[in-house]
Amino acid sequence: MASLEELDAIEQIKKLKARYFRYLDTKDWDSFQEVFAPDATLDTTTDRPDVPVVQGNDKIREYVERDAGPISTVHQGHTPEIEITSPTTATGIWAMQDVLKMPKDSPLGIKGLVAWGHYIDTYEQIDGAWKIKSSRLTRIRRQVEL
Amino acid sequence: MASLEELDAIEQIKKLKARYFRYLDTKDWDSFQEVFAPDATLDTTTDRPDVPVVQGNDKIREYVERDAGPISTVHQGHTPEIEITSPTTATGIWAMQDVLKMPKDSPLGIKGLVAWGHYIDTYEQIDGAWKIKSSRLTRIRRQVEL
Amino acid sequence: MASLEELDAIEQIKKLKARYFRYLDTKDWDSFQEVFAPDATLDTTTDRPDVPVVQGNDKIREYVERDAGPISTVHQGHTPEIEITSPTTATGIWAMQDVLKMPKDSPLGIKGLVAWGHYIDTYEQIDGAWKIKSSRLTRIRRQVEL
Repeated sequence: MASLEELDAIEQIKKLKARYFRYLDTKDWDSFQEVFAPDATLDTTTDRPDVPVVQGNDKIREYVERDAGPISTVHQGHTPEIEITSPTTATGIWAMQDVLKMPKDSPLGIKGLVAWGHYIDTYEQIDGAWKIKSSRLTRIRRQVEL
Repeated sequence: MASLEELDAIEQIKKLKARYFRYLDTKDWDSFQEVFAPDATLDTTTDRPDVPVVQGNDKIREYVERDAGPISTVHQGHTPEIEITSPTTATGIWAMQDVLKMPKDSPLGIKGLVAWGHYIDTYEQIDGAWKIKSSRLTRIRRQVEL
Repeated sequence: MASLEELDAIEQIKKLKARYFRYLDTKDWDSFQEVFAPDATLDTTTDRPDVPVVQGNDKIREYVERDAGPISTVHQGHTPEIEITSPTTATGIWAMQDVLKMPKDSPLGIKGLVAWGHYIDTYEQIDGAWKIKSSRLTRIRRQVEL
């Protein structure tokens, strides 16, 4: 059975990921960077095999801000499966839906994109605060709006 | 670290908001009114600057029932960030998606609407039961179906 | 107020349902069968009055695998309302959205379907593990893509 400490950690991690989604879609990039551990990794190779795994919360912020900044984005997370693996480490799986609307002059040549998949995450507690340590995005389906 | 009492309060507030969404979409207006504190406020001015903030759970029910009653509505809430600020008060942020289908003779002149945003809420415990004290809706994006 | 045991059970049941959705959409049918109690029931008669209530986790798996196997499915669950009714039994209500994409030769003669509704569930703890004991799907709305 989970201890009070573990249930509290699970709730904190859920709120951490909630902030990840909210900062991303409201384009609060300074706060966005802070949800990641300094040496965190972001792996979107399932979607974009040409983009290498990004390492470092500054590099993640740079990549996501450049990529998602000019787009109207909605990312929503569902049904978290958080497992506390030690007092300072945890894993998580989140279902997700994202709905992207490109600007008129988008170099991608599409109007929009709706997609569904899962985040496969790890988390680390650093100085008392939970951070995303690694995040890998997998996809079930993509629907492009031309 | 959160106490057992606080974790329990967080879970109760999540269920409170779950009932808000469910009663709204299943049009159970008597139950809908009861999720709000008697003097609660509902602020949808971001969406509709012409509608003043509604105060009173009877007035909120009246407004929402008149507005959403004739429409097929789906409102879904995600990734709650609940903070317990005292034994009887709390704040919360919820991501949301709503999908509205207007009746054929809608005075709004549109077929439907899909939108995304966040609820910025406060909660109060009254006679042992958590209630929505204030609720403000903000928007990331709206997509109108003509 | 909920006890630590009850809050732990609520979290376990949320993760159980999370796995239900994930195994269903990633077509992991062996794992899917295991989220149900051996004598579980699945009731989709609101959607499909012609399909009787399915009983038995082997029969549920058979039915869902045959039905959803050839389709690209996304099922996402929201805002759980879990009530622990005894140390080994519980009830739950989940909001849901499903987005189905049919294969080109689908006998249903439609391209896709987006729908919203609620799961009305019961759960049972068997040998220390929570399982879905009964699941009934209700609908708010269906949008067919022809």
